[in-house]
Amino acid sequence: MANLRGGDLSRLRQLNSLSAIRALRGAGPLTLSALAERTGLSRPSTKEVVDELAQVGWVEEVPPSPGTMGRPARRYRFRANCGYLVGIDIGAHNVRAALADLDGQVLAETRQPALPGAPLDDRLAAIERAVSGCLTLSGKTVADLWTVAVGTTGIVTPDGRVAYSASVPSWTGLDLAGRLREMFPCEVLVENDSRLAALAESRRGVARGSRDVVFLHVARRMGAALIIDGRLHRGFGTAAGEIGMLPEMRWLQATDHLNGCAIVPEETAPEDAAGYTLAAARSGDPVALDAVGRYLDDLAVGAAAMALLLDPEVVVLGGGFSRAADVLLEPLRERLERSCMRMPEVLASTLGEECVVLGAIDYAVDHLDRQHFTADAGPVPPQAAVTSR
Amino acid sequence: MANLRGGDLSRLRQLNSLSAIRALRGAGPLTLSALAERTGLSRPSTKEVVDELAQVGWVEEVPPSPGTMGRPARRYRFRANCGYLVGIDIGAHNVRAALADLDGQVLAETRQPALPGAPLDDRLAAIERAVSGCLTLSGKTVADLWTVAVGTTGIVTPDGRVAYSASVPSWTGLDLAGRLREMFPCEVLVENDSRLAALAESRRGVARGSRDVVFLHVARRMGAALIIDGRLHRGFGTAAGEIGMLPEMRWLQATDHLNGCAIVPEETAPEDAAGYTLAAARSGDPVALDAVGRYLDDLAVGAAAMALLLDPEVVVLGGGFSRAADVLLEPLRERLERSCMRMPEVLASTLGEECVVLGAIDYAVDHLDRQHFTADAGPVPPQAAVTSR
Repeated sequence: MANLRGGDLSRLRQLNSLSAIRALRGAGPLTLSALAERTGLSRPSTKEVVDELAQVGWVEEVPPSPGTMGRPARRYRFRANCGYLVGIDIGAHNVRAALADLDGQVLAETRQPALPGAPLDDRLAAIERAVSGCLTLSGKTVADLWTVAVGTTGIVTPDGRVAYSASVPSWTGLDLAGRLREMFPCEVLVENDSRLAALAESRRGVARGSRDVVFLHVARRMGAALIIDGRLHRGFGTAAGEIGMLPEMRWLQATDHLNGCAIVPEETAPEDAAGYTLAAARSGDPVALDAVGRYLDDLAVGAAAMALLLDPEVVVLGGGFSRAADVLLEPLRERLERSCMRMPEVLASTLGEECVVLGAIDYAVDHLDRQHFTADAGPVPPQAAVTSR
Repeated sequence: MANLRGGDLSRLRQLNSLSAIRALRGAGPLTLSALAERTGLSRPSTKEVVDELAQVGWVEEVPPSPGTMGRPARRYRFRANCGYLVGIDIGAHNVRAALADLDGQVLAETRQPALPGAPLDDRLAAIERAVSGCLTLSGKTVADLWTVAVGTTGIVTPDGRVAYSASVPSWTGLDLAGRLREMFPCEVLVENDSRLAALAESRRGVARGSRDVVFLHVARRMGAALIIDGRLHRGFGTAAGEIGMLPEMRWLQATDHLNGCAIVPEETAPEDAAGYTLAAARSGDPVALDAVGRYLDDLAVGAAAMALLLDPEVVVLGGGFSRAADVLLEPLRERLERSCMRMPEVLASTLGEECVVLGAIDYAVDHLDRQHFTADAGPVPPQAAVTSR
């Protein structure tokens, strides 16, 4: 037996607790043997970790089924319902929210339209209503919430301010985390919306299991986000992903090809024009298809720059326009094939409009893990997440 | 005391051994207390790790100084001289080599000119001579070598072939690792030269300690390499860094501004033209300065794309042209300031022409750590590196 003391032991314990929580989360009840196999820990270590997690409240023993004969093996599960998380997506045109348990399973969702030029307080009020709606739908109260994680359009500073937003002008300079903390008596996290969408795709979407992912957020405004070596890449000053700001990338005006297509009827609202063109292209309209081609010529410049620089395993096409993936995906692939040294997989998001709220929930789950299972002390009781704020 | 068995213990032991080796390497002799402080391990754990490392041959006790009074604390050092590493830089115009101990300290260096169009076998022979020269200079033999790590121009596959080289045409398609293994009876590693230069800058150069680094290899041909979250980013198919292949990045013809400058005398050899213009710009020649400005306009497009996408802490200007950093750095900084959301530090390499060989040595040291201290078994004796190949 090695001489293990203090710091060494707690370091190992934390690693083991995190392995156990990750194996139990979303897996249903597991026996000690099954858990030992999934974590790679010895059975005695597994027992010890589970006992400690049960003692502080993260894990509980599941009663054996009534009809079981003989002495059944004890089974344990993660207490996913000892707290709740809310994910919010603040876009220029919609505010979405979803409430999930600590497994990340969604229990309720809401959506409200918003206008890009709406006053700041109207948008903040819409956020409050979106969360209230989720609480009502799921029969929870604000006291059940541990974390509210928000994805917003714009560049977010490390302390949760919006440094710049082109699509929601009133948002620029806002202390969004501060305003949300006044609203919700729990942990508040703020991150860029494209980044959260990328996280969701790499955790539960088409890029699940890929270590290096480029996420193209194709919508009225274009964004990009990176998963590198399995982790969300934020950059030194949390300003990563803004390649579209460079005029030579040809993203700033790319959507004009769709908006300005000759077939769009004059009475169409400006925010619906691109969608009209994409729909016409899906029906085979040659003028619309031509406009989509020119749009993709521009989109492909920035996409090729990212693919050549990072050599990702997968490029995911997500955001509002990805509903038209059937007319976008193959032509984008062709354009990338002309530029790339090694061609990545090019896949359309399957999470669709939900990707940012789901990413916000995944981000909140990651944050809980960091907070409770990687500190220097032993595992913190779940209640500490609420009481320590 | 926790119930720790088999797999758990060896996992912890490996982490502790690696911490100890990293703390001892290049630090000179340390007492157990000093080592415990640097690794964050308990003193008993430190003693155990050191005893195990000494037993297998990685660490040795240093005899106390003759004049020491009383009972001096025992001191230990890393046995940096129990094996040797060679780093090689295969460029279009030069082959360089350096021999180092396991600390990465260079003991001997050689350089030989080469010609881009030289036959394949001439270039391979130059590599063999470069290594022989290092062995002679340092009084070692090829049997003392554990690892030969090579940085080459071109795109390198995971198994050490050159998939494509624009600057050394005969190199394309070469099984470089295979040819070098025929030459040297030791471990052979092959990597892209710009990546190794980036690694050296982040380990011992101007970007030391930075987690996110963009390295611009400015030379007759331009390259880029990334350190992300402290690690060399290779990409899913090891093709990362090739952003310069995209015409819109304006790197392919950027050097033409320097080569074609009107002040370059007609008799100048093509490979010396850019250097002539850079030298004239440093002397204040207005025509040369104008050409340098147009060169930087092009260089800055790709550099800005990388800075906007990754938000690095530092951009390092390295490679042959970085000797003219005094006329390049400030104008490049100005151009990036116009494009970047958050301005990174822009610094010139201080490792200069040596950066690729030093990076190759650092890469060989990393490889040794991975090979000996992160496997499932306990620390492997140093001899195993030679006998196990």
